[in-house]
Amino acid sequence: MPISANDPSRKSWLDVPQNSDFPIQNIPFGVFLTKDDVITIGTRIGDHAIDLGALQQLNYFEGIELTDDMFMQDTLNDFISDGKKTWRLVRNRIAEIFDAENPKLRDNPKQRDIIIFTMDEIEMQLPVLIGDYTDFYSSKEHATNVGTMFRDPNNALLPNWLHIPVGYHGRSSTIIPSGIPIHRPMGQTLPNGETSPVFGPSRLVDFELETAFITTDANVMGENIPVHEAEEYIFGMVLLNDWSARDIQKWEYVPLGPFLAKSFASSISPWIVTMEALEPFRTKGPTQSPTPLPYLQSKGKNSFDIHLEAYIEPENAEATLVSQSNFKYMYWTMSQQLAHHTSNGCRVNSGDMMGSGTISGPTPNSYGSMLELTWGGKNPIKMSDGTERKFINDNDTVIMKGFCKNNEVRIGFGEVSSKLLPPFTRK
Amino acid sequence: MPISANDPSRKSWLDVPQNSDFPIQNIPFGVFLTKDDVITIGTRIGDHAIDLGALQQLNYFEGIELTDDMFMQDTLNDFISDGKKTWRLVRNRIAEIFDAENPKLRDNPKQRDIIIFTMDEIEMQLPVLIGDYTDFYSSKEHATNVGTMFRDPNNALLPNWLHIPVGYHGRSSTIIPSGIPIHRPMGQTLPNGETSPVFGPSRLVDFELETAFITTDANVMGENIPVHEAEEYIFGMVLLNDWSARDIQKWEYVPLGPFLAKSFASSISPWIVTMEALEPFRTKGPTQSPTPLPYLQSKGKNSFDIHLEAYIEPENAEATLVSQSNFKYMYWTMSQQLAHHTSNGCRVNSGDMMGSGTISGPTPNSYGSMLELTWGGKNPIKMSDGTERKFINDNDTVIMKGFCKNNEVRIGFGEVSSKLLPPFTRK
Repeated sequence: MPISANDPSRKSWLDVPQNSDFPIQNIPFGVFLTKDDVITIGTRIGDHAIDLGALQQLNYFEGIELTDDMFMQDTLNDFISDGKKTWRLVRNRIAEIFDAENPKLRDNPKQRDIIIFTMDEIEMQLPVLIGDYTDFYSSKEHATNVGTMFRDPNNALLPNWLHIPVGYHGRSSTIIPSGIPIHRPMGQTLPNGETSPVFGPSRLVDFELETAFITTDANVMGENIPVHEAEEYIFGMVLLNDWSARDIQKWEYVPLGPFLAKSFASSISPWIVTMEALEPFRTKGPTQSPTPLPYLQSKGKNSFDIHLEAYIEPENAEATLVSQSNFKYMYWTMSQQLAHHTSNGCRVNSGDMMGSGTISGPTPNSYGSMLELTWGGKNPIKMSDGTERKFINDNDTVIMKGFCKNNEVRIGFGEVSSKLLPPFTRK
Repeated sequence: MPISANDPSRKSWLDVPQNSDFPIQNIPFGVFLTKDDVITIGTRIGDHAIDLGALQQLNYFEGIELTDDMFMQDTLNDFISDGKKTWRLVRNRIAEIFDAENPKLRDNPKQRDIIIFTMDEIEMQLPVLIGDYTDFYSSKEHATNVGTMFRDPNNALLPNWLHIPVGYHGRSSTIIPSGIPIHRPMGQTLPNGETSPVFGPSRLVDFELETAFITTDANVMGENIPVHEAEEYIFGMVLLNDWSARDIQKWEYVPLGPFLAKSFASSISPWIVTMEALEPFRTKGPTQSPTPLPYLQSKGKNSFDIHLEAYIEPENAEATLVSQSNFKYMYWTMSQQLAHHTSNGCRVNSGDMMGSGTISGPTPNSYGSMLELTWGGKNPIKMSDGTERKFINDNDTVIMKGFCKNNEVRIGFGEVSSKLLPPFTRK
């Protein structure tokens, strides 16, 4: 009988701290640099990083059809291209190798030394080469909050919002993994009440609490992906901090959408949690009314119960939890987003990334951006060190966490953490 | 004395038809598939495609620092990464090799057989792997026409337009070279006077007459490129047909900008004409008033006199010239676009592509889209076969051409040609 990586009763011979995001039931995929400066594809159990390239060289994936160097690469794109069946075989095999009852690697200290690292011995990299990055705008609460603040509270949602998973193309070149600091962007803004713009550091740098999914090769150009097939093409998910400069955005975004207000940086958590690992946490999303057009209709539990948190950590002070949201609040599902995205024949490739848009919940403490949490800066947030925040200050670190939890198991994303440095200065 | 590839008096020992876009003074760069199914980097003189990989293997680039397989690749990205000095050395060397007075290759029929193909023996490919694609909106006439039609003729330009080279992120995965047909996209639209959208084939497929420039690695994340340095990072230009579905665009684009209305296809001419080759055709662009902010100010001849044409060719009928425009009408220069794009620290890589936006001139016959040429479909265009067009019909081929010309030399782009097929049907 084939082993299932999701079996909640399984224990690993590797120690896993209580409340770890990475029990043996998770088995996410990432890319890391070892202390010997080798880049490899890996997974994580507890606080151990596991070199899948080394595992492959030692024949642990025998019997699974893989190219010889599948895991000795600096991105997951080729592995993701191999498709769902291969992802499942590999993930199940990893569960088998690290199962508490399996002595093969457990009792081979020499091989363990080659294969297993502690997290502080490695450096996480971007897990995929992201060809195209799309960001959606699929939380009704977020769209309503923004519409209420900037337009008309009585017509907060634009006419297309309930019919279309609205989205736009983002910038791939500035997507970075957790841990890389960014600089406060410079940009053109229009001061309140003025008619001439000025150029200088953005005064309103914000985070957006998002998730993103990573796709495999899905279609040829011209072909669409039906909504009921869309999940076949989703490899897994990460946390996404879609950094935003609100003052730049306000001045630039009409009529072609956000551009430099977003393209200075987007930070993601480095471990891709597979859809397979998230399977036990399926749930129904909000009821959709009006009923979407047929090409967007899908039934059943198409959302996921993923608890999300955002923290601000001032320099030399403790982090303050500023938002608690949940992926299940999303109005449009990932399947609907992917079906819509390809409805015009747009090609989707392995390693493309699609963001959810800010995920805001129904209560004020579940809003997914400072713009909403402070209501445009009107209600500053009190930090645990006594200071206040309307937006993000220089040298603040923004940390996002995400996890699923039931009575049996906790599957988490780890975190995406990124420090906002002062504006870049030329040397 | 080093040879200059731009010397207008030079002749090649390869025959060049009169009015060819590709005299020995052009030397564009592209990627093609040979009849033996080998992909190589190449250039073109007259109607001859030249295999630079073969030239390199036969030591014709001796003395120029290049990696061994520089031209035996399927994209130009690595070559472009090498920077302006290398581009110039290689281009000058090619001019030398094919100079009428140089017998080395001219009198070596065996080598000529390996290196030189006729255009019908090869198949042009996408010249670069495009990491990120940005499209600007930099023709004042175009923005004014669109604003007049859709908003208020008295306030046709939006408040930011004269201060910002407005642009947005496009979709890289559906950029295709000339010759590849596309399908009429399906999409969601709101019929006139209705409140509920419908899904079906777009009824308003349009072209946009554009050029695009290809960049080299320009900066690290966080760093900007000053406007006066921007040209250092521009490798060359291509023609771009930014296919657009006007009915999809109208319903989807507020507030995040065009998305599926554009992402079904963008067609480019396959030869990248270098900025060096375009140097003799520098000209001043329109006067900018109000004066842009300092980070966008540049003086001198920062535009180029490039004549542009768009044709519609119905199936089994002659092509009709529907638009004659010129790159020099562009309000914002490429340097300003690149300086603006990086003003927030956005990283620009080798092989990124930046489109001009539709280039419309001051007269109605110089408008760069059917939307403007027929004024929203009100004034259909008479075709030479007697039919009329408001937008593009199924099985029409849209052909764009571009060239520069002075008393001494003509430097052209060839063409970008793409047929619009009926909507895609699943097999």
